[in-house]
Amino acid sequence: MTGLIAILVFSGFASAGEGTDTAGDESNGISLLDTMWVLIAAFLVFIMHLGFAMVESGFTRAKNAVNIIMKNIMTIALAGIVFSMIGFGIAFGGDIGGFMGNAGEFVGLNGLGAGAWAGTTVSAVAFFLFQMVFAGTSATIVSGAVAERIKFASYIIFAVLIVALIYPFVAHWIWGGGWLNDLGMIDFAGSTVVHLVGGSAALAGVMILGPRIGKYKDGKSNVIAGHSLPLAALGGFILWFGWYGFNAGSSLAMDASVPMIAVTTTLAAGAGASLTMLVTWLRNNKPDVGMTINGFLAGLVAITAGCANVGPMSAMLIGASAGIIVVYAVEFFDQKLKLDDPVGAISVHGVCGAFGTLAVGLFAQASFGGVDGLFFGGGFDQLAIQLIGVAATFAFVFVTAFAVFKAIDMFVGLRVNEQEEVVGLDIGEHALLAYPDFEVPI
Amino acid sequence: MTGLIAILVFSGFASAGEGTDTAGDESNGISLLDTMWVLIAAFLVFIMHLGFAMVESGFTRAKNAVNIIMKNIMTIALAGIVFSMIGFGIAFGGDIGGFMGNAGEFVGLNGLGAGAWAGTTVSAVAFFLFQMVFAGTSATIVSGAVAERIKFASYIIFAVLIVALIYPFVAHWIWGGGWLNDLGMIDFAGSTVVHLVGGSAALAGVMILGPRIGKYKDGKSNVIAGHSLPLAALGGFILWFGWYGFNAGSSLAMDASVPMIAVTTTLAAGAGASLTMLVTWLRNNKPDVGMTINGFLAGLVAITAGCANVGPMSAMLIGASAGIIVVYAVEFFDQKLKLDDPVGAISVHGVCGAFGTLAVGLFAQASFGGVDGLFFGGGFDQLAIQLIGVAATFAFVFVTAFAVFKAIDMFVGLRVNEQEEVVGLDIGEHALLAYPDFEVPI
Amino acid sequence: MTGLIAILVFSGFASAGEGTDTAGDESNGISLLDTMWVLIAAFLVFIMHLGFAMVESGFTRAKNAVNIIMKNIMTIALAGIVFSMIGFGIAFGGDIGGFMGNAGEFVGLNGLGAGAWAGTTVSAVAFFLFQMVFAGTSATIVSGAVAERIKFASYIIFAVLIVALIYPFVAHWIWGGGWLNDLGMIDFAGSTVVHLVGGSAALAGVMILGPRIGKYKDGKSNVIAGHSLPLAALGGFILWFGWYGFNAGSSLAMDASVPMIAVTTTLAAGAGASLTMLVTWLRNNKPDVGMTINGFLAGLVAITAGCANVGPMSAMLIGASAGIIVVYAVEFFDQKLKLDDPVGAISVHGVCGAFGTLAVGLFAQASFGGVDGLFFGGGFDQLAIQLIGVAATFAFVFVTAFAVFKAIDMFVGLRVNEQEEVVGLDIGEHALLAYPDFEVPI
Repeated sequence: MTGLIAILVFSGFASAGEGTDTAGDESNGISLLDTMWVLIAAFLVFIMHLGFAMVESGFTRAKNAVNIIMKNIMTIALAGIVFSMIGFGIAFGGDIGGFMGNAGEFVGLNGLGAGAWAGTTVSAVAFFLFQMVFAGTSATIVSGAVAERIKFASYIIFAVLIVALIYPFVAHWIWGGGWLNDLGMIDFAGSTVVHLVGGSAALAGVMILGPRIGKYKDGKSNVIAGHSLPLAALGGFILWFGWYGFNAGSSLAMDASVPMIAVTTTLAAGAGASLTMLVTWLRNNKPDVGMTINGFLAGLVAITAGCANVGPMSAMLIGASAGIIVVYAVEFFDQKLKLDDPVGAISVHGVCGAFGTLAVGLFAQASFGGVDGLFFGGGFDQLAIQLIGVAATFAFVFVTAFAVFKAIDMFVGLRVNEQEEVVGLDIGEHALLAYPDFEVPI
Repeated sequence: MTGLIAILVFSGFASAGEGTDTAGDESNGISLLDTMWVLIAAFLVFIMHLGFAMVESGFTRAKNAVNIIMKNIMTIALAGIVFSMIGFGIAFGGDIGGFMGNAGEFVGLNGLGAGAWAGTTVSAVAFFLFQMVFAGTSATIVSGAVAERIKFASYIIFAVLIVALIYPFVAHWIWGGGWLNDLGMIDFAGSTVVHLVGGSAALAGVMILGPRIGKYKDGKSNVIAGHSLPLAALGGFILWFGWYGFNAGSSLAMDASVPMIAVTTTLAAGAGASLTMLVTWLRNNKPDVGMTINGFLAGLVAITAGCANVGPMSAMLIGASAGIIVVYAVEFFDQKLKLDDPVGAISVHGVCGAFGTLAVGLFAQASFGGVDGLFFGGGFDQLAIQLIGVAATFAFVFVTAFAVFKAIDMFVGLRVNEQEEVVGLDIGEHALLAYPDFEVPI
Repeated sequence: MTGLIAILVFSGFASAGEGTDTAGDESNGISLLDTMWVLIAAFLVFIMHLGFAMVESGFTRAKNAVNIIMKNIMTIALAGIVFSMIGFGIAFGGDIGGFMGNAGEFVGLNGLGAGAWAGTTVSAVAFFLFQMVFAGTSATIVSGAVAERIKFASYIIFAVLIVALIYPFVAHWIWGGGWLNDLGMIDFAGSTVVHLVGGSAALAGVMILGPRIGKYKDGKSNVIAGHSLPLAALGGFILWFGWYGFNAGSSLAMDASVPMIAVTTTLAAGAGASLTMLVTWLRNNKPDVGMTINGFLAGLVAITAGCANVGPMSAMLIGASAGIIVVYAVEFFDQKLKLDDPVGAISVHGVCGAFGTLAVGLFAQASFGGVDGLFFGGGFDQLAIQLIGVAATFAFVFVTAFAVFKAIDMFVGLRVNEQEEVVGLDIGEHALLAYPDFEVPI
């Protein structure tokens, strides 16, 4: 072991270290205020992984609670490593034909340097950390959709590949100086880059995996209740909290526009919850709690693209619309398409991610930043660009994720066997129970 | 839908957007450091809503766990919207006779402008966000006291009204340039503005609702145990964490006095927990855990008014006193007055809020900020002012909240029917179970 | 009561207050940016107490869940108070012979003054707060190891003593200008000061207490499963989140080296989780979830000493090594030494704390800060110093903690009686159940 370490350290890794020397250096165009803001935002985005773990676990059955949490732990654990090694370079390395960045540029964090990230006043290392915790979320979104039936090993392989090789391309196109950026697409904090990517990959996974045993019988969709609404709500609140880092930190600077980003984020979430509550109340005669959690998440997903480009009233309308859309989207995928998505990830992240991206083309106001959208006299131009971005992202991610899932299915197998699914993946994949002191009938 | 959106956007909302243009603007008297501090504090206050949800849910029965959480979700979701529309103007609009602010001044966030909030160097939009997340907490306090028997719809109506029309008046009087501010009342972070308001409204609600079925039999008060102490403790810790934003953020500036605010807050909480533990240990021969959670919350509530005006040793005494008071207050309301407050909100927030406000008149030291209190040679003047503030707030809130609850009771009905209360509000109001995989005997 | 307060206030406490006057003072060498950073870091370290409470509770049985949480609440509650009164002076008061600080220097926070802490640009009061929340963690680590059988009162006595009188000595030696600091020991954020101290004391406690009933039978170690893996995972995530404050805040300044500290912290945690998963997978044919949570904690503990002195690739190697070490260490203590440590605290905090401290001597690079370690051409010098620090700390803490536990055992009794242990400490020590609505077979 020591020998191995020594070899690794004295070869390539040694120089990696020197390349990122930052000790004591405070010049190089770095604003410490902006750097601190982005660091704190990164911590908030990190804690979203707890939020996802709890939402996904709470919305599924007790017999699979640990497996889901383990997937979320390993997603952020591995995301950091593979994004450092490969993903970051593809996303943010020197542009190659608008399609990808120079993957080799930052291997082992070489080349980040001690100064500010180009075009910002934020320490390049802080920028890297922020992007690293972001990258993991695209995989985590998939985790919920494929829950309760995917093999643990197969999920891990997929998570590594999406973070290393799928997500970074889209991130490059829109944030890294690629072709959608050149077109003028606006996706401030990632309704498309993160959420539509996650939702599109989730769709591919769900299509290949098929529904959980017992979900559809005689053409009827059965409700499979989540085992702990309090856990899901806890996770939802944590996600909302972390979203302040996600959206307001994407400014990559602490400037006077940041507070309004936090306000639009809050209002969209609130409006999302309110409209979902209202719609479910009117339709089912009772306000639906699980759906309302998805309602504020839908509002948050939708405002993510335009949080810095729309006003507070527009944010409420975007959030409210997402809160309505998510109810019908969940129903559509579940009952019409018979696609079994236990946590509603395709609807919340995919559909509302796409909607939110398009909404920038409708609600953007140049006075807040960027351009005027359709509703503010800007015509259809921005809307068309947003639509191209959504379509291209969906097509690229759906196709590549579909291929990756198919390949995993062929070589490793994607789904646990029937017996394991019935007794639960906690026993099957990890040989333990989430709640051994309690009686949990299977 | 699209038509509706278009109409809304092109009429009043369009101008609303322009009124709050902040893009790229960094002058206008804004300190970005102070603005960042207040934003982070706002995020911390936001997460207190998770804390309240978990404390209230953990302290009540499993059959009502979801209903309580749903109330907390909707409180923050709606608070943001109604406080934007109405409450903020009443609280912080131009003063009208010392009694209220100009409600119309900021409708739709019009008029906030791109600069600093008057009298501060904080972005007006950040100030607004901070006040918005604060406002929701006054309603959330009520939520716990009326738990396990109030109709969901009736609570929502009340929550909207307190955030829009009750809390803002008191906020104006003390923080918005109203008559108590003119008198010189000190309530730095809201022992009165937030906690006494919440506690007084809770008292009105509990009086009208009556006790839960089975709580009092033959003149004896029965303990109805909360269903998850771990959940309650989790919520308590989150509240303590968020309180750093609540208290230290109320400085509205990152200046050299802020660290001591965080220290007084910590010491008061620690002393509160310690004394509650001690008192319950001496009285019952065992340290009471649920009460100890209420003990540190009591310490936090009590130090809130004077956190910037007292020294660390005084903070400990204030917290310790609150930790003692809360034990006797809970007993008094529960056993003497037979008022059924499942989570002890009236005692923790109402009684200790009042105590903490008065304590400023005793422990304040001009060297920390403000004036000298009675114990530091300042005489009875400040204490008298604090007493007037407490009395006026209690009277105003208790009467208005009582009237609102009565009106809701007449027109909508306040309490669920007996059968629903017995099977639980999760089934009755939301048609689901919090923990469907576990057997929970009713 | 009022009389007592008045007496206390007018005697010593009054001057205590004046000594810490900070109102409005912004000069005195304070950087408000650095102060804000340290305050936020302190809030993050505070929330680690929630993390510990949930990890320890989740990893133990439902019948002891409340008792463990209560221990964690009281640890932070009392730590603040006793560290203010005694511990802080011993740790950071004027050096006396390299062995301890002047304990009387800051009693009641007297003498902190309104300016910056010596040698930093951070407000002395903020520095104090940061140290205060740190101090509590050394006790909390012990709490998990002695869980499910220690008397509540006895634990409280121990926690007070370690925070007041054991931890502060080591903190002085390494951080407060004592002999290990003079030797040149590097322990940036406390792999030794906090984690090895906690782990060594835990070892003493476990040795004296003996194993839980049923743990070892016929020379065989039985698994006693934790009652809630989701709760443990939640706690683990919160700890990781708080660790950003723990490590990156230990810079005591927001400078350009801080982002890399957050990156090394993240990569070490991720590598720790990954390797633990891998090792358990290879050995048991299933990836172990509980151990993987300990795996990322092990990575975090190990990187703590060198987080500012090693590069990102070295951080991964340190974390990965810790992720392997923790698996074998847990097995060694549990099966070879038959020492019953329900949460693995001795291995995670003690062993990996020692390893991480030594790793600085191997992986440090002067380009990141400090000196070059063995692997970077610095020879054995730093490694030898680190080894001295580890050995001295272990010896001092193990001996003093052993003595304290023995003394408590003699005078108060350390262990609950057999019947209480069987029915659970929640009933025995606090007369309640954690989950009264659920059936939990004993």
